[in-house]
Amino acid sequence: LRFSVTILGSGSAIPTLRRNPSAQYINIQERHFLMDCAEGTQLQMRRYEVPLQQLNAVFISHLHGDHYLGLMGLLSTMHLLGRRLPLQLYGPPELKEVIDFQLHVGRTTLGFPLNFIPLIKDETQDLYSDKMVEVKSFPLKHRIPCWGFRFNEKPFKRKIIKEKVIRHKIPVAWMKRLIDGEDYISEDGKLIANKALTEDPKRSRSYAYCSDTAYDESIIPNIRAVDLLYHEATFAEVLIKRAHQTFHSTAKEAASIALQAGATKLVVGHYSARYRNPDEIVNEARQVFSNTVAAEDGLIFNL
Amino acid sequence: LRFSVTILGSGSAIPTLRRNPSAQYINIQERHFLMDCAEGTQLQMRRYEVPLQQLNAVFISHLHGDHYLGLMGLLSTMHLLGRRLPLQLYGPPELKEVIDFQLHVGRTTLGFPLNFIPLIKDETQDLYSDKMVEVKSFPLKHRIPCWGFRFNEKPFKRKIIKEKVIRHKIPVAWMKRLIDGEDYISEDGKLIANKALTEDPKRSRSYAYCSDTAYDESIIPNIRAVDLLYHEATFAEVLIKRAHQTFHSTAKEAASIALQAGATKLVVGHYSARYRNPDEIVNEARQVFSNTVAAEDGLIFNL
Repeated sequence: LRFSVTILGSGSAIPTLRRNPSAQYINIQERHFLMDCAEGTQLQMRRYEVPLQQLNAVFISHLHGDHYLGLMGLLSTMHLLGRRLPLQLYGPPELKEVIDFQLHVGRTTLGFPLNFIPLIKDETQDLYSDKMVEVKSFPLKHRIPCWGFRFNEKPFKRKIIKEKVIRHKIPVAWMKRLIDGEDYISEDGKLIANKALTEDPKRSRSYAYCSDTAYDESIIPNIRAVDLLYHEATFAEVLIKRAHQTFHSTAKEAASIALQAGATKLVVGHYSARYRNPDEIVNEARQVFSNTVAAEDGLIFNL
Repeated sequence: LRFSVTILGSGSAIPTLRRNPSAQYINIQERHFLMDCAEGTQLQMRRYEVPLQQLNAVFISHLHGDHYLGLMGLLSTMHLLGRRLPLQLYGPPELKEVIDFQLHVGRTTLGFPLNFIPLIKDETQDLYSDKMVEVKSFPLKHRIPCWGFRFNEKPFKRKIIKEKVIRHKIPVAWMKRLIDGEDYISEDGKLIANKALTEDPKRSRSYAYCSDTAYDESIIPNIRAVDLLYHEATFAEVLIKRAHQTFHSTAKEAASIALQAGATKLVVGHYSARYRNPDEIVNEARQVFSNTVAAEDGLIFNL
């Protein structure tokens, strides 16, 4: 079962020919999510073969241009290519007005339902939930309202051990109860422990996205024990003053958050354009949290 | 003296990895103009080494996304890179609201003056004028209000022939009158014809941009005798019905306009994404107007 994160843009505010601003494609068991959508994201999606028309939902963290200015163009392309599939859009309340006004001035009516769900200031929200996957949002600490996101697989069911079930002649009607963890009790009162009939389930995986944000320990409960944490690291430690002024994080701060949250792996990104490569950023982070990697456009993380 | 047009985007609504949507950089005697600004234009400017921070004016033809969605990102990058130089912006009235609202939601105040001049529906306007260069707009015929633009060099002055002026001992005070074309009359009443003292001036050059538009002969007076005409040719003739429905032109129609206007050269562009290369479009146009070339991203026309 796939759980992958594709970096579509690893840079910050100023796009360059080497690095696009923020966007990520997240595929969880063939649910197709787009996390942020900077200018140029639709081209990055083509470049890295993301199935544009199959996107189920787009999440916009905040309304700085380097996180959302590619959205209008993406919606327009979906429309022009004949999309009919509904699209869920989660973002700051004003995003809806920005889109509606631009559709209005272009006298365009999208050919597919765009279902907008506003993010609520200072609140955590359960945004998306289906049988296998859920997405939650939580507030970050930035110059304007901004949210982080956590993508979880829901707990998997226990796995039935076929030969045991046959040997003990367990009725079919019991299978659902077994995968839910119940012990078996036969009609004549004999008990067989669930563990003797089933295997432990596959472990559920999780991913969290935190960009843009100042260092903020209050987010830790929301990203606890994720397999992969993306945390912005706009600056190296030497520019910590600039980081604080602009409500961004340094590499060390990102690593400290990963450590405290008990994340398995940290990916840093959103590097200031002053860094021609992320070596300084990632090396600094590794001093605090060794399992750190640098985001690069096109890089895919398979959880 | 430079008069060049750099194609930054030759495609239409849907950006592809081979072709960006509409944008052009026009340099007339070191006045730096941007004509339309699709998503991705700022990267195209980097790719083709256009001096982003020296832009004097941006012209937006209409409010379909493939002609303006790159503007917010461009303004943001100018701001972040510390621009102080004022920028003139000419576009449909609602463009101002689109920009202001997006600046508002991002709580951003541009660090440079953005002087907005609205285009007036159904009217021709004198937009820009300095000592050497002028820009005029005129209405096109599209699904929403849309304008074409004409960039002219103003008439050059006559050139003084040094040796003649010395031989005839013409006083310095007369020089300005000579370059303006006046005959010389000496204090004792002797006349020397201007043509004997000056050379004909350098010819003034002109460029017109017409995108997007249905076939519309009424634009011809506005683009008469230009050296270079850019006219959209979204479709080949076989799709003329689709062209009419969508208020676009076919290649033959674009060529017919160039012919009737007495243009020297025609460049076609804004090809529908269905054309993998513009051969069919440009060959069709050449049947009507032989001096036709195909727009390609990065192509520079020196007038």
